[in-house]
Amino acid sequence: MQTIINICSSNDSVLERYINEYKARTKRSRELFDNAKMVFAGGVSHNIRYFKPYPFFTTKAEGKYLHDVDGNVYIDYWMGHWSLILGHSHPFVAERVIEQASNGFIYGTVNKISLELASIITKLIPRIEMLRFANTGAEATMYAIRLARAYTKKRVVAKIEGGWHGFNTELLHSVNYPFGNEGLGLIDDKYLISIPFNDLSSIDILDKVKDDLACIIVEPFMGGAGAIVGDKEYLKGLEEYSKKNNALFILDEIVTAFRFKCSSMHDILGLEPDLITLGKIIGGGLPIGAIGGKKEIISLASPEFKKDERCNIGGGTFSANPLTMTAGLATLEYLKNHTYLYDELNRLGDIARREIDKVMRSYSVKTCTTGLGSLFLTHFLNDNDEVRNARDASLCNIELQKLYHLALMVHGIFFLPSKLGAISIMHNENDIKQLIEVTEKIASEIHL
Amino acid sequence: MQTIINICSSNDSVLERYINEYKARTKRSRELFDNAKMVFAGGVSHNIRYFKPYPFFTTKAEGKYLHDVDGNVYIDYWMGHWSLILGHSHPFVAERVIEQASNGFIYGTVNKISLELASIITKLIPRIEMLRFANTGAEATMYAIRLARAYTKKRVVAKIEGGWHGFNTELLHSVNYPFGNEGLGLIDDKYLISIPFNDLSSIDILDKVKDDLACIIVEPFMGGAGAIVGDKEYLKGLEEYSKKNNALFILDEIVTAFRFKCSSMHDILGLEPDLITLGKIIGGGLPIGAIGGKKEIISLASPEFKKDERCNIGGGTFSANPLTMTAGLATLEYLKNHTYLYDELNRLGDIARREIDKVMRSYSVKTCTTGLGSLFLTHFLNDNDEVRNARDASLCNIELQKLYHLALMVHGIFFLPSKLGAISIMHNENDIKQLIEVTEKIASEIHL
Repeated sequence: MQTIINICSSNDSVLERYINEYKARTKRSRELFDNAKMVFAGGVSHNIRYFKPYPFFTTKAEGKYLHDVDGNVYIDYWMGHWSLILGHSHPFVAERVIEQASNGFIYGTVNKISLELASIITKLIPRIEMLRFANTGAEATMYAIRLARAYTKKRVVAKIEGGWHGFNTELLHSVNYPFGNEGLGLIDDKYLISIPFNDLSSIDILDKVKDDLACIIVEPFMGGAGAIVGDKEYLKGLEEYSKKNNALFILDEIVTAFRFKCSSMHDILGLEPDLITLGKIIGGGLPIGAIGGKKEIISLASPEFKKDERCNIGGGTFSANPLTMTAGLATLEYLKNHTYLYDELNRLGDIARREIDKVMRSYSVKTCTTGLGSLFLTHFLNDNDEVRNARDASLCNIELQKLYHLALMVHGIFFLPSKLGAISIMHNENDIKQLIEVTEKIASEIHL
Repeated sequence: MQTIINICSSNDSVLERYINEYKARTKRSRELFDNAKMVFAGGVSHNIRYFKPYPFFTTKAEGKYLHDVDGNVYIDYWMGHWSLILGHSHPFVAERVIEQASNGFIYGTVNKISLELASIITKLIPRIEMLRFANTGAEATMYAIRLARAYTKKRVVAKIEGGWHGFNTELLHSVNYPFGNEGLGLIDDKYLISIPFNDLSSIDILDKVKDDLACIIVEPFMGGAGAIVGDKEYLKGLEEYSKKNNALFILDEIVTAFRFKCSSMHDILGLEPDLITLGKIIGGGLPIGAIGGKKEIISLASPEFKKDERCNIGGGTFSANPLTMTAGLATLEYLKNHTYLYDELNRLGDIARREIDKVMRSYSVKTCTTGLGSLFLTHFLNDNDEVRNARDASLCNIELQKLYHLALMVHGIFFLPSKLGAISIMHNENDIKQLIEVTEKIASEIHL
């Protein structure tokens, strides 16, 4: 049996061949991308969607498929930034959205559908006693921080190194390796402190700010940082530290709520967060964010208070719009009536994780496919043996990961390069088998 | 002829009567509101949508009408926070959105529709050389500030007293009378300075920060603060001050772009902003925000740069989604092919402003209906004679303004209490006549 060794030699020629194949299949996308560079910085309106040599242009999405402008069809594991657990335009959701579209996109007034969506969320996640809808996850986490500061009357926010909570100024720090500042135009925030993931020994660094600590915000499962599951003891430790120091414990479940079961992840882990942020799945693919939690905290946002007694958070113009509320409500109702689907989703994820690593190792490619349930990402290990935090993930061979994902694309399988994949209920075991087969072909081509 | 006098006596009995009539007509809404208080702080998910005694629940919106759960029908002048210049679910827009809904809500990848929407915007607003789509106006202005700081490598942001740019932390200061801090949970921002509107003499207060001044952000027409038009000389003065001090001049046109003509407001005023923020109308009623302007500034966001050379802005998960892009593109194409409609919209607004004040004055109620084109708001003057800034608006009789709007509701005309009204292309001269007639009836009931 061949020894498992790290990938140390160059795979330039393999990459070049796949780039050429990709280019040959995406000529119309290339033309559009050249046009896009005239109006968008670097040709894209959201940087994460850029990849080399250029991204293909999607023209249609249906079920598990993405169709591009050149007629290519991809089995989609990106699934709208992991928002679409029912697949693209699931008829149960699409039909209701279509009906609503004739009855108004935005009422600008209170409506019953938002009450229904709020009610089903509070029923399925009882820890959410009250909530507020925003339009994006970035707004939800920004408002969660504001509520924590308002409630505790303290200022410092602790987040996780590599933790991703959207583009809001509060939390856009220590996201990408080598962490620290995240680029131009962000003023150093003296009220923000970052701690490593899955390492409770480093929590001591919070001691110096504990009297001014408003909250700790953490994803129970790191999404953007690379599909990394939080240890139960670690997360429980953060929660205990928060409570001990009169700070709020905020669980960012934008990615995880309704992903592993028809509820949020906190009770799988036995956690008792004060605030939970939601997004993605609860909007059924339409723009949404939400902040939920204890009544006494969320109540601070009430219009009954005068401005100096209130925590002023959105809402926003488009918040609780009937189209998003309809899509979200249909999605959660469907999930509620088909909870057995989670077993299958989680099982397919387990197969993917196990078999990808097995097939890679059979070609001596040392990978570690992380994740949980229907979310997974294959890391190509360098000197490290495991991926337990964002730093570990950054030390992996990202270029090879991107090559793998580009190669998958050429074979008709779409992962956004270097981002985790999501299985939807439209995927089946044959799709996973195909993913493994194509992975085997690519593994056989990788130079060691 | 009766002398015009200020309203000094109480209108409690008039208010009470209208509240009782409103309650009698909205019993089902009242029940829903009681339920809503269980899951939403103060019963609403966006504070602006609350009004006394409780807001009605909308169940359908079509053309110029809102329908509530009790079967009441209102001619709607709120028009989705002024987003809907074509009215609710205009067939030209709705049909395309419905078609798109079967082909995917969110691709999560680049798409041609976003390129088309970007292209039509840059064509109709040539000063926007490049742009980026976000999901909300609050995100757009947050990113504009970040770009300004990145480009100038300076920190201080100047905004206008009463200026509303969304719920982002950067700009949620000095919005509501008596200005200053906007509530709990917001840390004092030492890099923010506010200046009065339409008063160039006070610009000197920026001198002390001019070497660190990154930008001045201003609405050319104050929306939230009360439909107040900016003087050309004032706005030009701010622009000159910005340029003289190597700061960016940011025009927030979220409300004004495509509202008065099929372009933005800056060229009506002869302004040359470095950055322009957009939202509302360009999304056709679906969630959107955008930041546009000079290529050399927007380019700082490009994924081609490494993180420490880049200005890291969204995007966001839902940005440039095909549903919003479709609604926005359809709306702008419709407006582009029917530019003559603006003359009618602006004319109806002129009639409303003139006739409302005339009829009010005929009953000795001293009002000042401000606005421009199809946007207008009736202020009930106290000691002041005019409304030229947010402070003037705050000194008016807001309670009487709310009474007026509640009374209009009972008569089947919806203005969100104390917020400006927007005329859409679905409104006609008869609607304005009806508004004047009802206004006359209400004016006759007001106690002086």
